[in-house]
Amino acid sequence: MKKIEYRFQVQWGYTDAAGIVFYPNFYKWMDEATHHFFAELGYPTTALFEQKIGLPILEAKCQFRSPLLFGDEVRVCSTITELRDKVFQIVHEFYKHETVAAAGYETRAWASFADGRPKAVPIPAEVKRVLAERQPSHSAVFQTE
Amino acid sequence: MKKIEYRFQVQWGYTDAAGIVFYPNFYKWMDEATHHFFAELGYPTTALFEQKIGLPILEAKCQFRSPLLFGDEVRVCSTITELRDKVFQIVHEFYKHETVAAAGYETRAWASFADGRPKAVPIPAEVKRVLAERQPSHSAVFQTE
Amino acid sequence: MKKIEYRFQVQWGYTDAAGIVFYPNFYKWMDEATHHFFAELGYPTTALFEQKIGLPILEAKCQFRSPLLFGDEVRVCSTITELRDKVFQIVHEFYKHETVAAAGYETRAWASFADGRPKAVPIPAEVKRVLAERQPSHSAVFQTE
Amino acid sequence: MKKIEYRFQVQWGYTDAAGIVFYPNFYKWMDEATHHFFAELGYPTTALFEQKIGLPILEAKCQFRSPLLFGDEVRVCSTITELRDKVFQIVHEFYKHETVAAAGYETRAWASFADGRPKAVPIPAEVKRVLAERQPSHSAVFQTE
Repeated sequence: MKKIEYRFQVQWGYTDAAGIVFYPNFYKWMDEATHHFFAELGYPTTALFEQKIGLPILEAKCQFRSPLLFGDEVRVCSTITELRDKVFQIVHEFYKHETVAAAGYETRAWASFADGRPKAVPIPAEVKRVLAERQPSHSAVFQTE
Repeated sequence: MKKIEYRFQVQWGYTDAAGIVFYPNFYKWMDEATHHFFAELGYPTTALFEQKIGLPILEAKCQFRSPLLFGDEVRVCSTITELRDKVFQIVHEFYKHETVAAAGYETRAWASFADGRPKAVPIPAEVKRVLAERQPSHSAVFQTE
Repeated sequence: MKKIEYRFQVQWGYTDAAGIVFYPNFYKWMDEATHHFFAELGYPTTALFEQKIGLPILEAKCQFRSPLLFGDEVRVCSTITELRDKVFQIVHEFYKHETVAAAGYETRAWASFADGRPKAVPIPAEVKRVLAERQPSHSAVFQTE
Repeated sequence: MKKIEYRFQVQWGYTDAAGIVFYPNFYKWMDEATHHFFAELGYPTTALFEQKIGLPILEAKCQFRSPLLFGDEVRVCSTITELRDKVFQIVHEFYKHETVAAAGYETRAWASFADGRPKAVPIPAEVKRVLAERQPSHSAVFQTE
């Protein structure tokens, strides 16, 4: 099965006065990678939103190993590391060439906002099956606690 | 009449690898200054939004004179330079001490989104009167074309 | 001659509570499009920076015609509309399908920061020739004043 | 001893199309709160940078409990929860009125970039003493693992 990768290039505006990427941008990219991940799986979030389904964030963590610089070409490899009834964890590894520059995860709920405020609801069986296929068979590079 | 000033300090995350503020942030601050301006006039945009009134942007321009740096204390002085039936222009001057570091304007419409998509509607007479008091009596520092 | 186009997709994080793109992001994209433009011309700004050359912004303006939404695929077409000794103007048109959603320009200097602070210097003849080829033969969609 | 609090108001540009704050902004605010924290302790990072000292991020995590909205007044209370030779952990709790809307931490190194690339060095004894006074006496609201 093809890995799901989100690719981008570090733009000038993502750097800070230290000459490297300002760290909150890694969370923007994790968010972008998650949207990309669901689109690749056949569930673009634009379509989910039309069905009043969102993926609110519960927790996000990132470890920073080596800085990214203006112009760097980056690949984010995303996998599912936890899959519960209404909640999942998605790990994102940031590769610059073959080096893991950063690795993080997001914990998100599957939520309906049909009644206004989002409310966690069970992940549909069909989606759950597709997500389960995206769980790495071996231990992930990123050690989640 | 007291001038309306929006004050902020340049945070680390607003700088880029040149060690100065990344220029799109000036437009964020113009947006913030406009919200502050209406709040100071007694029309907080949070309250306008509840009445289905928004201030969509039509045009924005900024001239950059001297760079802002991490830690700089900045004052944005805002005045109304054009006041039409449904549209107004608000000028924002960025002061670092007594120096104008940048000066720009936003052209915005007064719009109702009661029917979904925003539609420009006449600025209420009461609001127009308050805005008119914020027009500088003499020529502005910022030369609009 | 092939047009220079910078393509991107509107990410979730670029939207605001009105459900459309928060306008300062258009200036980020103009900045990105300018870096892309010079890279396409054979002068990547990463290489220019190593030669202590930067392109500081003097002025930027954008007109907003129709909002961009999450998921939109956007093309930015960039052309040179003014080419002086040390300063140039680059126009960026934002296309969503065949519609111009926004159009703006940046005025930038060619500057050396070999002595620390950037100082405008003449655009090298070779670069000027390449930029001159990127001037539209007919009047631009975007009316600059 | 007075608590160190970083206060801000949620600006329009921090929201997303769900009408709430886009989550990566919480990390921007944690970064801002850390700069504020050191300034309040008498070690503004602007002064540290002049001495070639930086505080590179190693890891950051945030848990999101209730969304923040446009216009919300927020207080970030920051405390030191781990203090090692070259590394410290700073916890940030986001309060909206008396509710903890989010809580996170940053792990940062004390680093010298006198030789170009940052290199972790021991936190000076004087700074360490001041940081130690900022450790909460009882268990933190935020459970770090």
